[in-house]
Amino acid sequence: MPYTLLIRNCGQLLTLSGGPTHRPLTGPDLASWLILENAFVACENERIVALGLMAELDESQITPATQIVDAQGKVVMPGLVECHTHLVFAGNRAHEFQRKLQGESYLDILASGGGILSTVRATRAASEAELLDNALRHLRDFRRYGVTTVEAKSGYGLDRETELRLVRVARQAGRQQPVRVVPTFLGAHVVPPEYKGRPADYLDFLAAEVLPALRGEAEFVDIFCEQGAFSVEDSRRYLQQARELGFGLKIHAEQLHDLGGSAMAAELGAVSVDHCDYLNAEDAATIAAGGQTVVVLLPLVPLFLRQETYAPGRQLIEQGLPVAISTDFNPGSCPSKNLWLALSVACLKMGLTPLEAIAGVTLNAAWALNRATEIGSIAVGKRADILVLDVPDYQQIPYWLGENPVREVIIGGVTSALEAP
Amino acid sequence: MPYTLLIRNCGQLLTLSGGPTHRPLTGPDLASWLILENAFVACENERIVALGLMAELDESQITPATQIVDAQGKVVMPGLVECHTHLVFAGNRAHEFQRKLQGESYLDILASGGGILSTVRATRAASEAELLDNALRHLRDFRRYGVTTVEAKSGYGLDRETELRLVRVARQAGRQQPVRVVPTFLGAHVVPPEYKGRPADYLDFLAAEVLPALRGEAEFVDIFCEQGAFSVEDSRRYLQQARELGFGLKIHAEQLHDLGGSAMAAELGAVSVDHCDYLNAEDAATIAAGGQTVVVLLPLVPLFLRQETYAPGRQLIEQGLPVAISTDFNPGSCPSKNLWLALSVACLKMGLTPLEAIAGVTLNAAWALNRATEIGSIAVGKRADILVLDVPDYQQIPYWLGENPVREVIIGGVTSALEAP
Ligand SMILES: [Zn+2]
Ligand SMILES: [Zn+2]
Repeated sequence: MPYTLLIRNCGQLLTLSGGPTHRPLTGPDLASWLILENAFVACENERIVALGLMAELDESQITPATQIVDAQGKVVMPGLVECHTHLVFAGNRAHEFQRKLQGESYLDILASGGGILSTVRATRAASEAELLDNALRHLRDFRRYGVTTVEAKSGYGLDRETELRLVRVARQAGRQQPVRVVPTFLGAHVVPPEYKGRPADYLDFLAAEVLPALRGEAEFVDIFCEQGAFSVEDSRRYLQQARELGFGLKIHAEQLHDLGGSAMAAELGAVSVDHCDYLNAEDAATIAAGGQTVVVLLPLVPLFLRQETYAPGRQLIEQGLPVAISTDFNPGSCPSKNLWLALSVACLKMGLTPLEAIAGVTLNAAWALNRATEIGSIAVGKRADILVLDVPDYQQIPYWLGENPVREVIIGGVTSALEAP
Repeated sequence: MPYTLLIRNCGQLLTLSGGPTHRPLTGPDLASWLILENAFVACENERIVALGLMAELDESQITPATQIVDAQGKVVMPGLVECHTHLVFAGNRAHEFQRKLQGESYLDILASGGGILSTVRATRAASEAELLDNALRHLRDFRRYGVTTVEAKSGYGLDRETELRLVRVARQAGRQQPVRVVPTFLGAHVVPPEYKGRPADYLDFLAAEVLPALRGEAEFVDIFCEQGAFSVEDSRRYLQQARELGFGLKIHAEQLHDLGGSAMAAELGAVSVDHCDYLNAEDAATIAAGGQTVVVLLPLVPLFLRQETYAPGRQLIEQGLPVAISTDFNPGSCPSKNLWLALSVACLKMGLTPLEAIAGVTLNAAWALNRATEIGSIAVGKRADILVLDVPDYQQIPYWLGENPVREVIIGGVTSALEAP
């Protein structure tokens, strides 16, 4: 079958393939990536069917129907995988920004009924249509940054009906536009007012009343393990229940304190442990030894929360851990969809190299969503989620701080014109 | 004469007018701004001729020829004024990014012949057409962020011919597209190899051989007062010579060390003192007492250089200083044109309020360019440089971290479609 899409004259084709196929990339694997210079990628409908040097291009597969994109010597890379967002919510928390600037901490604001709970009130009050409209707008913004897959957590409902609605909206949003949406259930985001002081009871309610209804709807179950939210012991029991029901596991842990939630979740086989700003070296070694968990770093969160402690990314990589990077897009602790900025800040504040950071927003992020056989690299048989950038060298990706280097976004083999901002 | 352009249904019209007209805005002035809700702005050709509440709109001035922009309840504000950039250069320094990540400091890299000097080599070797092409590309990017005036410093030539070329290119770039360019001469950026160890001789050369040729070409003269560049004493003498020739004065000072350059320049009547990360309270008081100097804060520079010390913006404002914010766009210490990100980081890291930060990228930045009668606010008689944003409340401007909130950019009364990124 002839090519339906051909991207030619790729100055650098960042394939992210050529490394191990059975586990996410760790530091030493990065040397084995294929970066092809002066290369092409060809697709048949939604799949990549060939790639190589321009000299190896089989012209006989090009027909008048082949759409041709000329990369003009620029970088071509896999579509970004955004593996940790709170996509579906109503309202925003711009009014809290001023309080934060005056020195109130995240936990102070939470304790005063602000923070997550103010978004919960707005989200419970919103119609399903309004929530969907918000989610679609955010997905459009993500797409402009070249994000082609977005994980979307629930967690601003905290009651059965609203939480089910949030998962439904995430799925619906995924069907109504080209960016793939992967739903995660985060009913265990914080203890709702109705269960104040009874976190274990709330988790029992979720496990008994909500999780069973989400089989086949949400792929992962996540919990916020932190002071003021859920303890390590409660989290363990809940995640075990979720695992028994067949869900993949994720955890928000070691964001503000070192409680041990990350190592606990890794021992349960979590696909990812997220935040890890306060992760200690011993627990990092435990996670590395397990060999099946990606550490998801969220560097814009400390920046936005005016904290000085960032996850020890460099050290985690030296310890053999696979690292992914995400924005944590949400209305409270990180109202940013600029994953390129997160990538730069991961370099600046966590010591990642440009290649490590690029792996963190592509293949390792795909591993964190259990989708590495399908997306996250440019390889024959994979889905044709591909970006053409406006820079000629991958080293420039983290360098142009805060900029969006994307010139063209291809999702499932389809190019889409980006609307002006 | 009827309106040529009408922007209607402005949810919040941030006029930045209503404060003092003879000096830049200080903290207390911000309470006196006019923020009009449900308002309009009208223009005749390149000038603003009316503004007010929608109820006050004089419909008789609308003709079929009037272009109408519906702001749909969103924020409308003055075009951004970017008052400190190094716009014209060749090459980039992405290759140094890795060295910085491995712990080398800005001054280490400079001492090893990298840093500014590597850009000087590339810039000297570039053709005028190539430099112009680069500058035009950067201006296009700035325009996407809603920047309608850009100050452009020379300083990567460091010899007579190249420095004159850089000023010429900046002026030429200003004529070839809609963003206004204000040229500043920064021949005193660093000591060139030809004058190694003889900074005073180099400054004498500039004052004798270059400055006279720039009258009417560059509006300001600037100098980098820092260890490894130029001392306070040498800077003082040079700025005095520049002043005698009729140039406005600017200085890069207190970026890495507290040497006293800012207070010195303010005493000479500088329009701005820039960086000020290490400015002490006593010198800040001296600058405030002078009453004619804007402090230009560059919050993305410490972020990009991996430094923890940011200018004490909150304290400077409490001391009565007018504060502007800029990216410092340049290939070495801040390869970012995202002035909105700089605005957010000024809030997060320097403690500015949203209103203070907004004044810092509009009216106070116009003061830092001696153009406050012409641009920086929305007032009758001023140039029609106006932005329509995609947010309904100014508090959301710093909140959506790293995002570009611009929906429409109007320069001199002309709307221009933004190309997709
Ligand atoms: Zn999160
Ligand atoms: Zn500068």
